[in-house]
Amino acid sequence: MTAPWLDALFRPRGVALVGASEARAKPASRPLRFLRRHGWAGAVYPINPNRPTIDGERTWPDIASVPGPVDHAYILLGTEAVPDAIRACGAKGVRVATILAGGFAEEGAEGRAAQEAMAAVARAAGVRLVGPNSLGLADTHSGFLLTANAAFEAPAILRGRLAILSQSGTVIGTLLSRGQARGIGFAKMISVGNEADLGVAEIGLALADDPDIDAFLLFLETIRDAAAMAAFAAAAARQGKPVVAYKLGRSLAAQEVAVSHTGALLGSDAAADAFLRDCGIVRVDHLETLFEVPPLVLRHRPPARPARAVAVVTTTGGGAAMVVDRLGIAGVEAISPSPQTLARFAAAGIAARPSRIFDLTLAGTRPDVVGAVIDVLLQAPEFDAVVAVVGSSAQFYPEQAVAPLAARAGAGRPLVVFIVPEAPAALDLLRAAGIAAFRTPEAAADGIASWLAWRRPPTRRDVPAPEGTLAAIAACAGATVVNEREAQAILAPLGVPFARSCSFAEGQAGVVGWPVAAKVLSRDVPHKTDAGGVVLHIADATALAAAGARIRAAVRAAMPGARIEGVLVQAMEPRGVAEVLLGYRLDPQIGPVVTVGMGGVLAEIYRDVAVRVAPVDDATAADMVGEVRGLAILAGYRGGPRGDAAALARTVVALSRLAAVPAVEEAEINPLIVRAAGDGVVAVDALVRLAGSAR
Amino acid sequence: MTAPWLDALFRPRGVALVGASEARAKPASRPLRFLRRHGWAGAVYPINPNRPTIDGERTWPDIASVPGPVDHAYILLGTEAVPDAIRACGAKGVRVATILAGGFAEEGAEGRAAQEAMAAVARAAGVRLVGPNSLGLADTHSGFLLTANAAFEAPAILRGRLAILSQSGTVIGTLLSRGQARGIGFAKMISVGNEADLGVAEIGLALADDPDIDAFLLFLETIRDAAAMAAFAAAAARQGKPVVAYKLGRSLAAQEVAVSHTGALLGSDAAADAFLRDCGIVRVDHLETLFEVPPLVLRHRPPARPARAVAVVTTTGGGAAMVVDRLGIAGVEAISPSPQTLARFAAAGIAARPSRIFDLTLAGTRPDVVGAVIDVLLQAPEFDAVVAVVGSSAQFYPEQAVAPLAARAGAGRPLVVFIVPEAPAALDLLRAAGIAAFRTPEAAADGIASWLAWRRPPTRRDVPAPEGTLAAIAACAGATVVNEREAQAILAPLGVPFARSCSFAEGQAGVVGWPVAAKVLSRDVPHKTDAGGVVLHIADATALAAAGARIRAAVRAAMPGARIEGVLVQAMEPRGVAEVLLGYRLDPQIGPVVTVGMGGVLAEIYRDVAVRVAPVDDATAADMVGEVRGLAILAGYRGGPRGDAAALARTVVALSRLAAVPAVEEAEINPLIVRAAGDGVVAVDALVRLAGSAR
Repeated sequence: MTAPWLDALFRPRGVALVGASEARAKPASRPLRFLRRHGWAGAVYPINPNRPTIDGERTWPDIASVPGPVDHAYILLGTEAVPDAIRACGAKGVRVATILAGGFAEEGAEGRAAQEAMAAVARAAGVRLVGPNSLGLADTHSGFLLTANAAFEAPAILRGRLAILSQSGTVIGTLLSRGQARGIGFAKMISVGNEADLGVAEIGLALADDPDIDAFLLFLETIRDAAAMAAFAAAAARQGKPVVAYKLGRSLAAQEVAVSHTGALLGSDAAADAFLRDCGIVRVDHLETLFEVPPLVLRHRPPARPARAVAVVTTTGGGAAMVVDRLGIAGVEAISPSPQTLARFAAAGIAARPSRIFDLTLAGTRPDVVGAVIDVLLQAPEFDAVVAVVGSSAQFYPEQAVAPLAARAGAGRPLVVFIVPEAPAALDLLRAAGIAAFRTPEAAADGIASWLAWRRPPTRRDVPAPEGTLAAIAACAGATVVNEREAQAILAPLGVPFARSCSFAEGQAGVVGWPVAAKVLSRDVPHKTDAGGVVLHIADATALAAAGARIRAAVRAAMPGARIEGVLVQAMEPRGVAEVLLGYRLDPQIGPVVTVGMGGVLAEIYRDVAVRVAPVDDATAADMVGEVRGLAILAGYRGGPRGDAAALARTVVALSRLAAVPAVEEAEINPLIVRAAGDGVVAVDALVRLAGSAR
Repeated sequence: MTAPWLDALFRPRGVALVGASEARAKPASRPLRFLRRHGWAGAVYPINPNRPTIDGERTWPDIASVPGPVDHAYILLGTEAVPDAIRACGAKGVRVATILAGGFAEEGAEGRAAQEAMAAVARAAGVRLVGPNSLGLADTHSGFLLTANAAFEAPAILRGRLAILSQSGTVIGTLLSRGQARGIGFAKMISVGNEADLGVAEIGLALADDPDIDAFLLFLETIRDAAAMAAFAAAAARQGKPVVAYKLGRSLAAQEVAVSHTGALLGSDAAADAFLRDCGIVRVDHLETLFEVPPLVLRHRPPARPARAVAVVTTTGGGAAMVVDRLGIAGVEAISPSPQTLARFAAAGIAARPSRIFDLTLAGTRPDVVGAVIDVLLQAPEFDAVVAVVGSSAQFYPEQAVAPLAARAGAGRPLVVFIVPEAPAALDLLRAAGIAAFRTPEAAADGIASWLAWRRPPTRRDVPAPEGTLAAIAACAGATVVNEREAQAILAPLGVPFARSCSFAEGQAGVVGWPVAAKVLSRDVPHKTDAGGVVLHIADATALAAAGARIRAAVRAAMPGARIEGVLVQAMEPRGVAEVLLGYRLDPQIGPVVTVGMGGVLAEIYRDVAVRVAPVDDATAADMVGEVRGLAILAGYRGGPRGDAAALARTVVALSRLAAVPAVEEAEINPLIVRAAGDGVVAVDALVRLAGSAR
């Protein structure tokens, strides 16, 4: 804990409650009540000029009149009163102010301006901020529960070793109450609100080495500072502490909602997803997975080469089938034991046969049998994990099938349990043993799929940009969109193979052979086809002459102001096995990302793309190609030829090297023609956008 | 309750427990214990030749020695002993036997044979069967709990008005225990097992007018008798009783698992899904939705023309965003109130502004304000439903936002609630008021989406098959696959427009104009292209002569045994706006279904098809066209021309009329070219498979 504000945040010498209220229904009444109820022994100063006492405690009219030191102030006043309160905090030497009020960036342009002004006041006053829109924070180990979240009305708060960092204040209460009902406690909980100053990333980084914390749970509406988030994730990883995130924004509608909610500026969820995975953060899809998955990720690190295959053992065929069904939707298969594993069953005297589900009722649901079956499966290399699904017996006879599972924690492969009936005692038993136990088939499958998608953050070597690329960019001084020849000159040195091309005069001389395509060269015409700037299938020199004239006339007519820099002649490429779109951009939230997807209109309809943080290595690029469903045709769909997937992956790697070229904001190759296996790929058209004067 | 076996099933004059055991750990010990524990007052006869008493009660050595009448026997013996026990039941006059043992159809071919033999024994003995593989059944109103499911160890079983019919026995216990924990009771619960005789459909039909039952919950692994299921659903609908189903098999893996589990022969899930919806059954996706959604479907019938738009009101932005996000994934949008609705808010003195989420904390989370907001929204016609998301206050201050919701049951549009924290009392309050209240954002969104997808069963008029179609089929006597000309002759009278075609000789005379395509005519060559039987883009009579010769030679070489019936000449059709695949088949489980999807390989990769039970009407066909994502191009994608979606829908209706032609087992038009709006559609190739001798 080296951050200077961290002790002030969680263990202040004194805390002021600015605007504390006695009206029990008001959130401003809660922090004092909760601090007292849950036994905070430190100095608390309710600030209220209108009442001499609150809840029987003395108040102060303003923070200046407080006698002792105040490290932390929770400002419970209305929106307009906040800046002055921060100034007063600064004068008193307060290190951190947490702001309850909303009405800031989540309310549009005016609110954003108010938030920026408030942040400036805080910087000037030397006060770090949590919020605005923060329901506060809690440290269960010290008893410092500085929060207006109603969930802390609970008579007692469980301690635990998980930290919650949330952009939604309510979600703190959601996780607290749901956790308490399940015997799961938390170490620290922080509602960061709009993150005007301190946010999830910076607080998380400061807590990475907190000895009370084993893992971090994040509830995210957006990612405001990707670099800080990556630094937090890396620090947590160095400490061996998993970070699990539930992030909104999977639907477009929710992206808009999140914008209105905390003033977040959301990028595409695909980029955010790529970023979180790249950071080594486990992203879950279902709310309850967030607090049900920690035992799995605490005990079992990211799988190195997941087979996406699990063993399923059960006392209930119907219950198991529910999990298998949902796992199947997530692309994880329940598979039959290998002959070697079946032989091990035979050696152990267990009746087993090849089946996707090992039905314990056939072997006899006795504790020794269940234990022996699990022992064999946990050592079987064909499975990424063993999923045990326990039926009605879990409720009244946990000793039959649950107890032997609880005794197998940490013995080999991960063991994951889905308890089919309502059986709190069974869940308790497993939780106490440190085994991930889920209460719905959906969360169980989500937990397994999330763990399988978990990756160690890649170690990236800084590969400098090729001289050729930098020289080509230098030659484009002042341009934002460059012309086709310039785009090729920028991308080709990275390793992107382009169709042969030449100048118009060379083309007429037959330099690239026939037939050819002709394209206008102009920095002012990014969409050449729309402007009539492209003619395809040109058979000979006469036709080319005509095409050149047609192109110039069409572009002049369509875009009278455009400067025509020439006409490019390019060899016509046959169609190939697939036409692919490769993209690169500097995402405003996430930074450099590379994309591969199908070319053509259908790709857009099906949103069938793979996205990663750039640069990527060969293995990651191969994964990306494998993820695009439409690229299944590269494997020789329905008797068609196989495509050169390896060359495609190499070209993804090549384009992703633009991450070393900050001058390039966006690049797109559309289409990249994938030829038959061994014949490579060829880019037919490219677009590059530079950062203009920032180059 | 008119079925003669129904009283024997649930209210027998005497019940025999054949193979009752005293070993508490054994399932065979449970039925006697549970009957006594839960107060069944009727005659119970434990049958066990080896023990004079069980649990202090007298036993009988065999069923023949039982003194009084026995209407129902639960056979708890091992697999091999079952047939003899059934014979003994028949001799005693038992009407219904429920079979616990597995080892039948779920175990493969041998087990299937054993099951059929057992069913034959039962028929001969005049005994109706439940199971095998049945954990029994329960009637909470009569106290007849004849089950080996461990969940009934509970000290008391809640009564309720929902019936559960399940192909998985464990799931009975799952729903019982989860329901009990939430104050939800059930009226009747039946584990039907392998359905060797009585199944979900027949039992459901008999219970349709049961005065104890308000709605049916089904857990399905397969659909064994589609006609009976449809009859059950129709009878339930006539009684105004919703049927809600959770069905496995959404992933291919689970289909296989279900096969191994209860011996079900699964068809494609898409057909099953179409069938369930066509029956007016509500299909849910998440386990908990099954028992959380009933209040919604009990009070609110299927929406006539859903806008797929909801109002979301909340005390917590983060909690609401979780539901909105999941609703968005399901294609349901949270929308802003209309100007009219905003005016009504203003008239009621409520501060409201256009937003996808109505944040109650801005208006003040007081009961009167919450109530007034809900009152306005429940009357607003722009929403299909109102979703209220209550945050931490639900846990400790339910009077603030939960109570006013509970008071609004049934007032206008459906009200659906998601309680964000763990708040059992709030859920109780809402359940008691008959309001659907969900405990996860996933189930809440699933419940809403399932309700929106609910449809009244269509009323189908029997439209006889056109004479022309029947005559064309008659002309194909003996064939299974027919040739292209015959296929066109069968389908054209239904209203499928084909490209102009003619005989080879007519083609040479230029009857259909130029260019043309030539195709082999042969009942032996269903895949003409693969056999070299198709030549496209033929420019003139000379080329056509050559093409004809080439086709005959190629087909003879590729398929030496094939009888060549001629060569068809067809006008070459330009590409159009989209190429579509239309399919029709007699699904072995479901019966006639019609399919529309994109043509080409990508359609198969993306599984982007719409399926319905055939025949369909115009509105349904239009829905189908709207469902296929790739057909978004018909709306004029990216400045392209619009396609003739209306003509496409008409052709779907036409093809679906094959439902009146039992001789046709399968038909496919691939591609159907969709021209620009107003220009219609044209079928370019067709395949028809007849039922052979069954014609």
